This record gives sequence, C-alpha cells and structure tokens, in this order.
Amino acid sequence: MDDTFAVRPVGRVRSPLADRDAAPRQGDEGAPEAWVVFEPDVTEAMRDLAVGDEVILLTWLDRASREVLVVHPRSDLRNPPTGVFSTRSPDRPNPIGLHTVEILEIAALEVRVRNLEAIDGTPVLDVKPVLGPIAER
Amino acid sequence: MDDTFAVRPVGRVRSPLADRDAAPRQGDEGAPEAWVVFEPDVTEAMRDLAVGDEVILLTWLDRASREVLVVHPRSDLRNPPTGVFSTRSPDRPNPIGLHTVEILEIAALEVRVRNLEAIDGTPVLDVKPVLGPIAER
Repeated sequence: MDDTFAVRPVGRVRSPLADRDAAPRQGDEGAPEAWVVFEPDVTEAMRDLAVGDEVILLTWLDRASREVLVVHPRSDLRNPPTGVFSTRSPDRPNPIGLHTVEILEIAALEVRVRNLEAIDGTPVLDVKPVLGPIAER
Repeated sequence: MDDTFAVRPVGRVRSPLADRDAAPRQGDEGAPEAWVVFEPDVTEAMRDLAVGDEVILLTWLDRASREVLVVHPRSDLRNPPTGVFSTRSPDRPNPIGLHTVEILEIAALEVRVRNLEAIDGTPVLDVKPVLGPIAER
C-alpha cells in the first residue's frame, strides 16, 4: 500500500529518562513523573484538561525500528519470538506509543503527568480521555 | 514544530458502515462486526493473533478534519464547546482512532472483529494487546 499520512507532533515529552535502556517497559512499572510541553497552536485543544484527569497520551516512538515484525517480548531471549501485533514492543511498523497517565499539574502549555515511560524528547501526537461507562459519556 | 512523520497503513477496515453519519460514537454502542484486511508485508507481525484475543486497533480516521480544536461533544449542541484533547472526537490534529475489539475469526490476512465503529476503508495503523496485570506480562 503506497499511501501514507503525515503525523505532526503537538508537543514533546520532557523527562529524566534519557534513553531506551533506562526506560521501564510500561508506565506502571516504575516510570518517573514527566512533563508534556505542548505547541502553542494546540492551546485550544488542551484548554479543558484538568488536574486529576486520567488520559491516554499517544506518542511517536522516534527511536524505534520500523522494520521489526517479530520480537522476543520484553527483550528476554527466553520468551519465544512473537509477532509485534501481539506485543507492546516499541519496534513495529508504525511506532505509536499508548500511555495511560494522570495529570498532576498544568502550567500554561506544560502538563506534568505521573507514570510516563517515554524518553526525553519523544514527540506527542494526541491526548484522549479514558472512556468511562456508557452512561457517563 | 515543522517535523512530521509518515504513517503507513498496515491494512484496511472492511465494514458495512459506509459513512460517518451511520457510525456509532463508540464501538460498544452498537457497532457491527467488521473485518480488518492486512497487507501481505505484515504477515509476520500478525502471526500470533488468535481468536478470542482482546486487542486495541489503531486507525487513521481519514475522513476527519485536522483543523478542529474545539467541539460540542457527541455533536450535541447542548454540550458546551470542549477542547478536543478532552473528547474522543475524530476531528483533531492527528486523527488516530483507538478501538478495543475482540478477534472472532482469522482467515489468512483477514481478521473478523466485534464492536468496530470505524467506517469502510479506514486505514489501520497498528494492533496492540490489551495490557493485563503486571504479573501476567
């Protein structure tokens, strides 16, 4: 399939995590607090974010390999080779990260969050609310 | 921010839903069964998908408007205008859809799923497993 679509970062992660080797596998496995620094042109999109919100951050894992289709899960050679669509490996054809985080603080375009395993500089693509029960939507 | 990244569809949705007006707001609000038809070059990535798996499909909502930053949630004018990062509106800067679906059938490159509200022809970007408790990863 030849068509592609261009994603444009709406912000960046600012984190003490400097590289992949230092990052935990998932946000609830010991990830630090981090900041998401948004671009000024999405100010209106973020205006209703609030402290205490649980949201899903979508990131572009720009240091991943897009050629990888099979991995040993969690980089542990004792785990059998597994197709990446059955794993959360960052290495995959479209390396989009999903991170469920809680908003701790908002200061203008900067949002501090708990439990983000993305490394410093990672582009942010989107923010979505966690969906509650149907009756509360 | 000037840099962009190119996402490349790994498949397409085949669904009886022909347009946005016919689609339910979310997959668990009356969406039909649908098929995801994968590209041959991701055969290895999908090889461990299995009937009964609950997975997250990521799609590119190619009929969305990327200029919209504020919406009335659920297209109901009685709902106050809300920044799109606090809504699941398809209209947003990077229109990536998240869909939690159950795999019902697999036939070579075609995967039948329950509860998919994406419309016919929607590009599919990725498939990820739903994360269980930490001890089971």
